[in-house]
Amino acid sequence: MVWENNVRKVVPYVAGEQPKKKEIIKLNTNECPYPPAPAVAKLSAQMDTNSFRLYPDQNNESIVNALAEYYGVKPTQVFAGVGSDDVLSLSFLTFFNSDKPILFPDVTYSFYDVWADLYRIPYKTVPLLDDWSIDVEGMKQENGGVIFPNPNAPTGLFTPLDKVEEIIEANRDVVVIVDEAYIDFGGESALPLLEKYDNLLIVQTFSKSRAMAGMRIGFAIGNEKIIKYLNDVKFSFNSYTLNMPSQILGALAVKDDAYFKDITGKIIATREWTKKELTGLGFTFPDSKANFIFASHKSVPAKDIYNYLRGQNIFVRFWDKERINNSLRITIGTDEQMRTLIAALEVFLG
Amino acid sequence: MVWENNVRKVVPYVAGEQPKKKEIIKLNTNECPYPPAPAVAKLSAQMDTNSFRLYPDQNNESIVNALAEYYGVKPTQVFAGVGSDDVLSLSFLTFFNSDKPILFPDVTYSFYDVWADLYRIPYKTVPLLDDWSIDVEGMKQENGGVIFPNPNAPTGLFTPLDKVEEIIEANRDVVVIVDEAYIDFGGESALPLLEKYDNLLIVQTFSKSRAMAGMRIGFAIGNEKIIKYLNDVKFSFNSYTLNMPSQILGALAVKDDAYFKDITGKIIATREWTKKELTGLGFTFPDSKANFIFASHKSVPAKDIYNYLRGQNIFVRFWDKERINNSLRITIGTDEQMRTLIAALEVFLG
Repeated sequence: MVWENNVRKVVPYVAGEQPKKKEIIKLNTNECPYPPAPAVAKLSAQMDTNSFRLYPDQNNESIVNALAEYYGVKPTQVFAGVGSDDVLSLSFLTFFNSDKPILFPDVTYSFYDVWADLYRIPYKTVPLLDDWSIDVEGMKQENGGVIFPNPNAPTGLFTPLDKVEEIIEANRDVVVIVDEAYIDFGGESALPLLEKYDNLLIVQTFSKSRAMAGMRIGFAIGNEKIIKYLNDVKFSFNSYTLNMPSQILGALAVKDDAYFKDITGKIIATREWTKKELTGLGFTFPDSKANFIFASHKSVPAKDIYNYLRGQNIFVRFWDKERINNSLRITIGTDEQMRTLIAALEVFLG
Repeated sequence: MVWENNVRKVVPYVAGEQPKKKEIIKLNTNECPYPPAPAVAKLSAQMDTNSFRLYPDQNNESIVNALAEYYGVKPTQVFAGVGSDDVLSLSFLTFFNSDKPILFPDVTYSFYDVWADLYRIPYKTVPLLDDWSIDVEGMKQENGGVIFPNPNAPTGLFTPLDKVEEIIEANRDVVVIVDEAYIDFGGESALPLLEKYDNLLIVQTFSKSRAMAGMRIGFAIGNEKIIKYLNDVKFSFNSYTLNMPSQILGALAVKDDAYFKDITGKIIATREWTKKELTGLGFTFPDSKANFIFASHKSVPAKDIYNYLRGQNIFVRFWDKERINNSLRITIGTDEQMRTLIAALEVFLG
């Protein structure tokens, strides 16, 4: 049909499988195994649904203010969106408008090249070094912008802050986005670098450490000017993005710091236990600071292990893709879920 | 700062004022004066917040299925997004990729030119005729796509279906988007035309007739191929957009047809009463089939009336913009709200 000539044709991102069976152990999409902060359930039950007839606050003030207070920045330094994917995609559109290619690691979050293609942004991938670490020198070549996750996905490796600073310092003429989706599991945020660098944008999410993937909340922190540009583009798209429950319940979740520390602490402890067990079973992996482990077995192909676990109703993530097709990305679940996983692996590999 | 050279600079859309005072009469953003369907409050109070830790269904199946059943189409013909603004903006990106300008009326929803600018889509506006109706002949000139609201905003005028069909028929080589945000207040949807035209995309919203602006739900209906293209682009942005409460409560709202008919019927009746009263006060307006009236007074400038009403805590919408700067867009509220409005106008104009 002729109208199809003008259609933007893209290869859509394929998200991790979301099986509908309830009895499975779901370790494939890096969700949090614990529920959101208790106050969320309480307020949710009392939500004033009459107010749903009105538009939500287009400035997302409740959640922006809660985050500003928590992270010790001004509200004008915080931007909130529909998950960090929304925030990141908007950031690509807003900040990556050079003819020079933007740079990101070759093994990284698989949405970066999808957004670049969607917005027709030229890009160049910088191969990870042999130890899976980010090639800091490679990030210093001429470019139109830089983005990388810290910790990186799906490796889980944390890039130390002095290296992060080196990358930002070398790229003062473009925006450097540090995607900190997994920062709360033992990494160190680049937030203190904001005082020195106006070209830094930090993006985080409520989907992992704040146990609210189902509410779709992400945010960015930067200097006031960079956040203003992001808001201008946001208001060109859709003034009202976060719906009322996300704004109300999200703000509440940020305020319960004790609960947040408790669940992230538990996930870290479970991850360290899982690392030991996996090592004992013959797996190797980069030393993850995220809520997942990216593991390869010394003799059994990842795909075989993946299929076996699936048969046991344990879902982990596998990509049939060059360089990473012998690794499994295993989300850290509860202690019990991880014991079940390890027991299943013992049967299969033992 | 050098990094600013690559920033996408836009003139953001300015949405209707959202005053924070509670005691005002808010007739400025076309929200519904009645609460959402009763089942929404009931289920909201029982929401399983533990499941918020998981990603929502990326295919929005519950809401897509409910809409497909309600409108008698296949689920593969329905696309859901974060308000109709999200759906429309994605549609611009997906379908308007020609070098030829897209066409829309000169007086219309003020986001169209914002999206065109954002995505660098060439566009040409087609002036409304003297009676505020859409210039059907003007919509037949060479173009890269067509979009218009039906009823149009802010005029409220409905374009009869034979005229709509004439526009679609004359533009078989591009996508024609009919933005039916206000269709449920006495207009007639173009849905039956889908059987004849594969280049037609119909967009609607939960923000007006379904009383859920605060939940951010919009949707599009078209043939399976057009919806597939839209989904491909959506999955390139953000796989998970509608959050859990929107999916669950939105589906529920669609199922209560009796309530839907009741509140839209009440709004229509209130609108017709308001028309008579406004006429008696010396106002003229296009004959609205929407939940608002676009009224000019025979002698008092719109801006003066706007300022006076504001002082009375009654907010209506006014644009200080050529061609429409002597009109007020007045949202239809409850009977009581409209009586208060008319009484205030009587004092000011009498």
